[in-house]
Amino acid sequence: MVTAPGPSHAAFNVVELIRMKCDRVELSDAQIDWLFAAYMADEIADEQMAAFAMAVRFCGLSRRELDRWTRAMINSGDRLDFSGLSKPTVDKHSTGGVGDKITLPLVPLVAACGVAVPQLSGRGLGHTGGTLDKLESIPGWRASLTNEEMMRQLEEVGAVICAPGAGLVPADKKLYALRDVTGTVESIPLIASSIMSKKIAEGAGALVLDVKVGSGAFMKTSDSARELAQIMVELGQAEGVTTVALLTDMSTPLGLSAGNALEVEESIEVLAGGGPSDVVELTVGLAREMLAAVQRNDHDPAALLASGAAMDVWRAMIKAQGGDPEAKLPVARETDVITADRDGVLQSLDALAVGEAAWRLGAGRARKEDAVQPGAGVQLHAKPGDWIPTGQPLITLHTDTPERFTRARQALANAYAIGDYPPEKQPLILDRIA
Amino acid sequence: MVTAPGPSHAAFNVVELIRMKCDRVELSDAQIDWLFAAYMADEIADEQMAAFAMAVRFCGLSRRELDRWTRAMINSGDRLDFSGLSKPTVDKHSTGGVGDKITLPLVPLVAACGVAVPQLSGRGLGHTGGTLDKLESIPGWRASLTNEEMMRQLEEVGAVICAPGAGLVPADKKLYALRDVTGTVESIPLIASSIMSKKIAEGAGALVLDVKVGSGAFMKTSDSARELAQIMVELGQAEGVTTVALLTDMSTPLGLSAGNALEVEESIEVLAGGGPSDVVELTVGLAREMLAAVQRNDHDPAALLASGAAMDVWRAMIKAQGGDPEAKLPVARETDVITADRDGVLQSLDALAVGEAAWRLGAGRARKEDAVQPGAGVQLHAKPGDWIPTGQPLITLHTDTPERFTRARQALANAYAIGDYPPEKQPLILDRIA
Repeated sequence: MVTAPGPSHAAFNVVELIRMKCDRVELSDAQIDWLFAAYMADEIADEQMAAFAMAVRFCGLSRRELDRWTRAMINSGDRLDFSGLSKPTVDKHSTGGVGDKITLPLVPLVAACGVAVPQLSGRGLGHTGGTLDKLESIPGWRASLTNEEMMRQLEEVGAVICAPGAGLVPADKKLYALRDVTGTVESIPLIASSIMSKKIAEGAGALVLDVKVGSGAFMKTSDSARELAQIMVELGQAEGVTTVALLTDMSTPLGLSAGNALEVEESIEVLAGGGPSDVVELTVGLAREMLAAVQRNDHDPAALLASGAAMDVWRAMIKAQGGDPEAKLPVARETDVITADRDGVLQSLDALAVGEAAWRLGAGRARKEDAVQPGAGVQLHAKPGDWIPTGQPLITLHTDTPERFTRARQALANAYAIGDYPPEKQPLILDRIA
Repeated sequence: MVTAPGPSHAAFNVVELIRMKCDRVELSDAQIDWLFAAYMADEIADEQMAAFAMAVRFCGLSRRELDRWTRAMINSGDRLDFSGLSKPTVDKHSTGGVGDKITLPLVPLVAACGVAVPQLSGRGLGHTGGTLDKLESIPGWRASLTNEEMMRQLEEVGAVICAPGAGLVPADKKLYALRDVTGTVESIPLIASSIMSKKIAEGAGALVLDVKVGSGAFMKTSDSARELAQIMVELGQAEGVTTVALLTDMSTPLGLSAGNALEVEESIEVLAGGGPSDVVELTVGLAREMLAAVQRNDHDPAALLASGAAMDVWRAMIKAQGGDPEAKLPVARETDVITADRDGVLQSLDALAVGEAAWRLGAGRARKEDAVQPGAGVQLHAKPGDWIPTGQPLITLHTDTPERFTRARQALANAYAIGDYPPEKQPLILDRIA
């Protein structure tokens, strides 16, 4: 009888594996499997895994190492299985941006085409908002579902946005918490494997990635964003999940709002057939990719927004999770308006500065245990290319705690410029990687 | 009143400092001081320091960073002060090699010239032996002295070889233990600061470094050894300690023995005016450097070996630390002889292989808590360049535990070659860096 080597078999020496990585010697599949098994069994200390992660930051992971690394992370926990559903499943992931509420209209829109969308989302930390924080501004809505509730809702409504269960990719939870305090977040293979291990464990049959690039994104340059997108597409395909990525602009915020209830409100405008044109463009663009990934190109997402079919699914989805889709959304107690100090055309509006302002106003959290203000955030009255007369409102700040206005205004001090001529128009969708 | 920023003032964010190092941004003096103060106060976790050390492995430390880093380590503990002695002090450090017993004859030889030598030494780990382990094979000899005992012995005998007190450079103890388990030993600036912080804290007025290069040394190439030597000399001079380094060959063992009592025996031969020529050459060469560093070039070390003056100091030094210089040294219970399988000239004899064989025979330890066998080790009957007839003893293995012979023989299997012509002669002292 052959016994699989478990973590208690000290089959490898972790210091040797760290040295191999430093010397750019490829690790074997067995070595990578052992590394995760031993780390999860607390046989490798945090300081050793931190040193390994830092070595990966400098030396990377080979194609083969990264496939195995991602698989080892997936294998550390449960993997959802939607094969019992009567419809195909497709999921979407965004690497995070300012004003990125796309998930909210997108999930019901795709579900309106007869495709199930099991969207497991997170909470915000720092300057990018979290989808669950946004939805929790809807009275009664709850983020946690059991697997049975999720399956039933996918079958009946088609759309689910909820928190992942604790059993999904525990290795990523442990490793991410370590990377967060050791300066090892900034590694493209580690970012790619963190995202893809979770998305693959979440069990959808196809996956569309929205990889953001620009000041408000984690990836500041299109080269690094393209590299990340390419690696994630390859990782998905290696695990048998049809994966496509769009590279999209995050130099300026998406839409006209950054905050929790503010973004829900804007999403409802989009579902009602209106809303800012960039939010509509990206929602429709991602919906087309998601439908194509499961061979359902016979639907026109733009028409389903206009017809109200997507709004019907939205209402059903919110209700199924205890929320009241008709309830009035929370509004912040105080506002402060920044006006244009000259006539002209808005040249630029920096995404990172807007994200930081929204965060400082209370829309985001500095530590995991902080609460967010549902009504706080930033409302934009113009986008780059718009003409504004002197004295007209440019930005409205919202918060329950007006002492926060000063720091929010500081964050926005150099965030925009007004000039005489229209700026060069930047495309929203920069590239497609399949 | 101005309060110096102590570790409890979280003046800096350690994750930011790690990121700066990864991005090759120079840290300020205040940041480096804070890093050590916070690490020693357990405000920086081991995983964070491990990540920082790994970033240093890849990005190095600038000249200024390294000076401050070394000073911060020194400032973490006590610094010995020998200014009350009636004579100058000089110290020596070897980066470690196989058969490197030079400290044993060297310290009494220099002391015989009227210079005090406060030599704080360590125990062995892995294939290189430790000076304290060697001396502890002398019945009664003890490694621990109080500061008062040390001062008295330096004044009266001039020569001390003992264990460092616990208060010297605690930051190095903590950091070295961390580096040992995180694959971050292999960093020239970290090695240099570890050695030099201890040597400077040990308080000698001048310092001579023996930087080994070759298979049996930590530095395998002369480029890396020269870089280490250069950095250490600069660090010593930055702290006002006259520092000189010799680069010496460690491709083949020093002398004809590797082991504890075996090396004491060989050292006594040198002190008696005999002994292997390479051990004599290096002992005299280092003694000349040490004397020159304190302007005592008026003594001839070779003459003091021949006259027995150095032997007199040796006996006094051993007696002062409780040892019996006349006692019979321990002898291993079992021996095993490797003979030449052909006539010819010994071409090479690999230092690392001999060191590993001695270690496997029980002369060294695998873990800090292991005991060593005082009589175990390897005795060489020929050196590269010597002619040997078939069947003549080449190497004698010594141990109390004969089951160790097999693995020692395995270590030596490819350690030497016998050929027809004399090999090219390598110089022992390769370079001098001042």
